[in-house]
Amino acid sequence: MFDRADLDRISVVLVSTRNPLNIGAAARAMSNFGILDLRVVNPFEASFREARSAVGAAPLLEQAKEFSSVAEAVTDCSLVVGTTAVGHRELQHPLYRTEQAAPLIQAHIATERVALLFGSEKRGLSNDDLSHCHWSMHIATRQEHLSMNLGQAVAVCLYELVRENASTIQTHFSQQARAKAGEEAILTSKLLQALQSSGYIHPGQEANTEETMRRLVKRMSLSSDDARLWLGILRQIGWKLDTGKRSEEES
Amino acid sequence: MFDRADLDRISVVLVSTRNPLNIGAAARAMSNFGILDLRVVNPFEASFREARSAVGAAPLLEQAKEFSSVAEAVTDCSLVVGTTAVGHRELQHPLYRTEQAAPLIQAHIATERVALLFGSEKRGLSNDDLSHCHWSMHIATRQEHLSMNLGQAVAVCLYELVRENASTIQTHFSQQARAKAGEEAILTSKLLQALQSSGYIHPGQEANTEETMRRLVKRMSLSSDDARLWLGILRQIGWKLDTGKRSEEES
Repeated sequence: MFDRADLDRISVVLVSTRNPLNIGAAARAMSNFGILDLRVVNPFEASFREARSAVGAAPLLEQAKEFSSVAEAVTDCSLVVGTTAVGHRELQHPLYRTEQAAPLIQAHIATERVALLFGSEKRGLSNDDLSHCHWSMHIATRQEHLSMNLGQAVAVCLYELVRENASTIQTHFSQQARAKAGEEAILTSKLLQALQSSGYIHPGQEANTEETMRRLVKRMSLSSDDARLWLGILRQIGWKLDTGKRSEEES
Repeated sequence: MFDRADLDRISVVLVSTRNPLNIGAAARAMSNFGILDLRVVNPFEASFREARSAVGAAPLLEQAKEFSSVAEAVTDCSLVVGTTAVGHRELQHPLYRTEQAAPLIQAHIATERVALLFGSEKRGLSNDDLSHCHWSMHIATRQEHLSMNLGQAVAVCLYELVRENASTIQTHFSQQARAKAGEEAILTSKLLQALQSSGYIHPGQEANTEETMRRLVKRMSLSSDDARLWLGILRQIGWKLDTGKRSEEES
């Protein structure tokens, strides 16, 4: 994720939103992704701050600023980005996909404020709204179904801004202790003992089977915990097999 | 975007969803991103197919398959991926961020079916649900506010699966005709004439100023349309300046 300071330079501006539930949903997504400055221009319902869809984002919605024009809402921002479905494509300024827009916005918020404008549910941003934008971005949706829900569009745009390249992320998985070669070796030997006891290994095939099983265990890519779990299982099976054998011999 | 055939190998499985509006919202996001196979396990409301939030996705919701267990819902899938908020972190199997999970899923759907499981709004996927998963993924949300709205989480996960690297996308912007060098040259000369007429250019600075203005026009990176617009403006200004000059001389 970014520095908090960088994300603090992003404002989400909802223009002429009709359904207050969508304002609440946008607020929730903002809070999820750590973008906390919401600005609302001419909302259809004055009571939008009570939207119950803002689960966990009530403080953000409480602090939202209300404006009566786009110009006032973006006055302190040096980059203003419109969002649009491709259907509404405006040739008056550049239109980028979100994937291309994100690095431009990220570069800008290192030092300057950015406003992301989202239009009303039915009509999107008007030509007048777009005249306040330096450029626009759109989420690449299917030609047959371009128009996204407003709250979902806000979530996707903000996700694109905070997502990281997979290569730079440390996996949680890798933090979990992996089985060491020694543990794998013990496991393999226990497995072989069990196979031996069970009559799985044909005479003369011992070396072959051992190699096959060693590879099998390697391919399991076990965590240390899971290796221990398996060891317990094989010990139990081995014990049972040997006990059965002994009692067979005894009988 | 992917081949349609690849996306057809993704199933979204909603487990024990309480609010039918969230099922509708998930359906809408699926339709937006071209992932059309919805499976529903034990929805809280049987009438979920009428959810009015599925704007534009009624056919998808109509064709959703209903199951009474996760096992039945994923039976034809060779990779089953759970989704979870990090709070519910399960150490029993790997947990990847969506950015890391996407390439794994993309590789899989080239030939095989994948199921993406989403749990209920309150509790997410249960341990029993997760035991059907090969691994889990999560959207990297803010520590202070981990839990996303279900419809928004579905939208973000699917967006991550269909998004492209910015470098491989052709910009819409570049499709717009750019001003040719000849048009820029005419514009520069009109600008210089206007500057000359206005007395902007100091005697002896003509060559210097010409170079400065040529660079200025280049940096504008004009579209053909905008170059024409500027040319009109400068012609008008030039005409006015020259008229003023003549009337000054005449008086």
